[in-house]
Amino acid sequence: MSATLLASLRKLLGEAQVLHDGDLSAWEVDWRKRYRGKALAVIRPASTDQVAQAVTQCAAQGVSIVPQGGNTGLVGGGVPNASGTQIVLSLQRMNRVRAIDADNLTMTVDAGCVLQAVQEAARSAGFWFPLSLAAEGSCTIGGNLATNAGGTQVLRFGNARDLCLGLEVVTPHGDIWHGLSGLRKDNTGYDLRHLMIGSEGTLGIITGATLKLAPQPAASMTAMATCPDLPACVSLLSLARQRLGDALTGFEVMNHVSLALVAQHMPQLRQPLPAAPWSVLLELSDPQSAEHARAQFEALLEAALAQQLIDDAAVAQSVAQSKTMWHLRESIPLAQAEEGLNIKHDVSLPVSRIAAFCAEAQAALTRDIPGSRLVNFGHLGDGNLHFNVQAPVHSDAAAFLAREESRVNTIVYDCVVAHGGSISAEHGVGALKVDELAARKDATALSMMRAVKAALDPQGLMNPGRVIQQR
Amino acid sequence: MSATLLASLRKLLGEAQVLHDGDLSAWEVDWRKRYRGKALAVIRPASTDQVAQAVTQCAAQGVSIVPQGGNTGLVGGGVPNASGTQIVLSLQRMNRVRAIDADNLTMTVDAGCVLQAVQEAARSAGFWFPLSLAAEGSCTIGGNLATNAGGTQVLRFGNARDLCLGLEVVTPHGDIWHGLSGLRKDNTGYDLRHLMIGSEGTLGIITGATLKLAPQPAASMTAMATCPDLPACVSLLSLARQRLGDALTGFEVMNHVSLALVAQHMPQLRQPLPAAPWSVLLELSDPQSAEHARAQFEALLEAALAQQLIDDAAVAQSVAQSKTMWHLRESIPLAQAEEGLNIKHDVSLPVSRIAAFCAEAQAALTRDIPGSRLVNFGHLGDGNLHFNVQAPVHSDAAAFLAREESRVNTIVYDCVVAHGGSISAEHGVGALKVDELAARKDATALSMMRAVKAALDPQGLMNPGRVIQQR
Repeated sequence: MSATLLASLRKLLGEAQVLHDGDLSAWEVDWRKRYRGKALAVIRPASTDQVAQAVTQCAAQGVSIVPQGGNTGLVGGGVPNASGTQIVLSLQRMNRVRAIDADNLTMTVDAGCVLQAVQEAARSAGFWFPLSLAAEGSCTIGGNLATNAGGTQVLRFGNARDLCLGLEVVTPHGDIWHGLSGLRKDNTGYDLRHLMIGSEGTLGIITGATLKLAPQPAASMTAMATCPDLPACVSLLSLARQRLGDALTGFEVMNHVSLALVAQHMPQLRQPLPAAPWSVLLELSDPQSAEHARAQFEALLEAALAQQLIDDAAVAQSVAQSKTMWHLRESIPLAQAEEGLNIKHDVSLPVSRIAAFCAEAQAALTRDIPGSRLVNFGHLGDGNLHFNVQAPVHSDAAAFLAREESRVNTIVYDCVVAHGGSISAEHGVGALKVDELAARKDATALSMMRAVKAALDPQGLMNPGRVIQQR
Repeated sequence: MSATLLASLRKLLGEAQVLHDGDLSAWEVDWRKRYRGKALAVIRPASTDQVAQAVTQCAAQGVSIVPQGGNTGLVGGGVPNASGTQIVLSLQRMNRVRAIDADNLTMTVDAGCVLQAVQEAARSAGFWFPLSLAAEGSCTIGGNLATNAGGTQVLRFGNARDLCLGLEVVTPHGDIWHGLSGLRKDNTGYDLRHLMIGSEGTLGIITGATLKLAPQPAASMTAMATCPDLPACVSLLSLARQRLGDALTGFEVMNHVSLALVAQHMPQLRQPLPAAPWSVLLELSDPQSAEHARAQFEALLEAALAQQLIDDAAVAQSVAQSKTMWHLRESIPLAQAEEGLNIKHDVSLPVSRIAAFCAEAQAALTRDIPGSRLVNFGHLGDGNLHFNVQAPVHSDAAAFLAREESRVNTIVYDCVVAHGGSISAEHGVGALKVDELAARKDATALSMMRAVKAALDPQGLMNPGRVIQQR
């Protein structure tokens, strides 16, 4: 049966685009190397019609499909399971920018476009596509939408879903939904776009998208400040929102341990301010001018100093200094990796609960897991923390993880749920959090999710076992 | 059977909250008086639990439910059909503001809160809830969310769905989904919130919502300008976006006929600028100061004059002048009603296609429906026009509508679809556009919508016949 399918896929796509033998690890293993699957084949269609026909062929044979973009996911949602029976459908050959509409502030792209290519195409046309995240050099916009990616500019522009006006999708039946649209208002029925976005390939395959563009700001400016504690960071956020309005496009926090790891493992990176309990990175995107941006930033930081919300601050004086500040923030995950294995959590809380959550969770970890080190940083403006736990200094990190990972997760997630938070803020569910989600999500919501999945994918062939387990 | 149901509903809700006899027209007739239904009863639960139990009782008897908020809908989606077998479930008694969270910039409210009460509660707490539309004095936030309402500030803040972070919903089975959340990032499964929003009560009943708040701007300022033609309006929009960034919170256009009708029927309203082919209303919300806002506005308008995008402009010098300008814009529907019956269209287009669409649609109307007058106004920044057709001067408007409405709709909607637009931008589908939608929407999307409806409401009891006809 699978031989017949592979033969017909080869006829459809060409020999070279149906990979069956040899080393397929680039598609079978996730980039954190926590999930190592085995595919029946990797197929690489070049057009929406080819995707539709490939899905139709697989559906006829009852063969399940794992859609894949840049394979940069963090929860094992984009690689096949170990059964050797799943087809990986890679969108990477579909990488055209289809159109840019300047007056409408939109662009339409293939799902396989790399995010950075989308950003650059927007910039070349004089616009700004403000989705930005660490993997932007290799992740695809289709994957960003399938997982509703977040990143560093959510504070102002929202998540990936908020930057998308329309979709083209191949359904589990192999039909094409022609939902590309440059409309900002369209109340003609259920919002299938938002249903598809964030469904991680379990309801269909996104093949194209119409994206929102923003005007390029006249000036971008970065500042860093140090705060005595987390409540002061939250107050600084409120003050910055009040005074800068929507020009505040980034607000990142980093605890002392985070920047200490960067200092230890990347000593060549200059840290502009003395070590402090908390450091904040602020980004301002000003439609008016660099002078205006600087004046606004300085007035804000003076007010924050006067209110004792911050102890010290530095405004970047050049693009190079601005890049250095961001580089510090973006180096934390790598510094963590250099330090050794660690336990990552991508959680969100109401901003008003963040300080209490952090205090409680950290106290519980200190009490129950002596020596554990909390690397706490993230997008405070969105209530999103990367609340990562590093093994004690000089310990065997692998042994620590084997022994403590489950207990650490329980401590953190219990505390998240108690404070009205989410156990997956921006990384999704994938394979990693399916059981955790089933245990913790509202039962009615789970049952609605299962009903929707069964309705749209009655054979259960689209990325099965991810997000929710069918009953 | 219905007597048993009414008795058990009376036991659940109290005698006074199950209305069966007497004049129920306040709930049975829509406010445009185009839909006159007959309810089995009107029930008025006071809590989410009561809603859930009432739905359970109705579901057990196979009785269908029409959820209703302020009954201000424009497409007949909130009133019962003529069968006398449907229960109207009014949310109006559920009108508490449950909580305001200042640091998180959120508020949680009952679905039956009147929009204006929500706005005022936000203002009292020092914040801004930026959903604003003509019916705000009587529509409810639950209805706004069920229909994904638009209004005058979508340009900056998006539609109702973009202002909502979490929902509490009673499902067609009578279960409660506890989805209230103040989270800006939550990637734990399918986005049921967006699926419910805009589903017009056909998938469940929204009983509560957590809403996003914005900081109050330091200054709001209004200006009007006149443009020689519609392409100039579109260019002015681009220029304003470029220079003002997100401080541009409103951009409305009005054609000559619109303001001429206002001048004729409301001669007491002072029009600040001489009559022109197109007039534009701009709103600026400045986080900095009134001086800054005025300087920004004046610089923009000078640049627009220099580029010959506008012929004349006036910046409001006081709150009173600002209100007068908005009053002109908001009086157009009333002036239309004074002039007589008319045919309304709530359409959206990519902004880049608006000028071509208007030229073509107006030419076709002039050719095929001689004497018809186009009252064309709306939210240009969102690509949303109220493209309304008034009967010829001194004609019998009722006879005109009877004779021409269907032909007018076909001309307008054919042209909308040809330009990639939507036949319902912000008013929804309701009963009015079910057939039009079935005829014009992408077939795959319709089939997905039917599958979702059948999955979540297998008995077809929630607002049946609205949005989509089940097969």
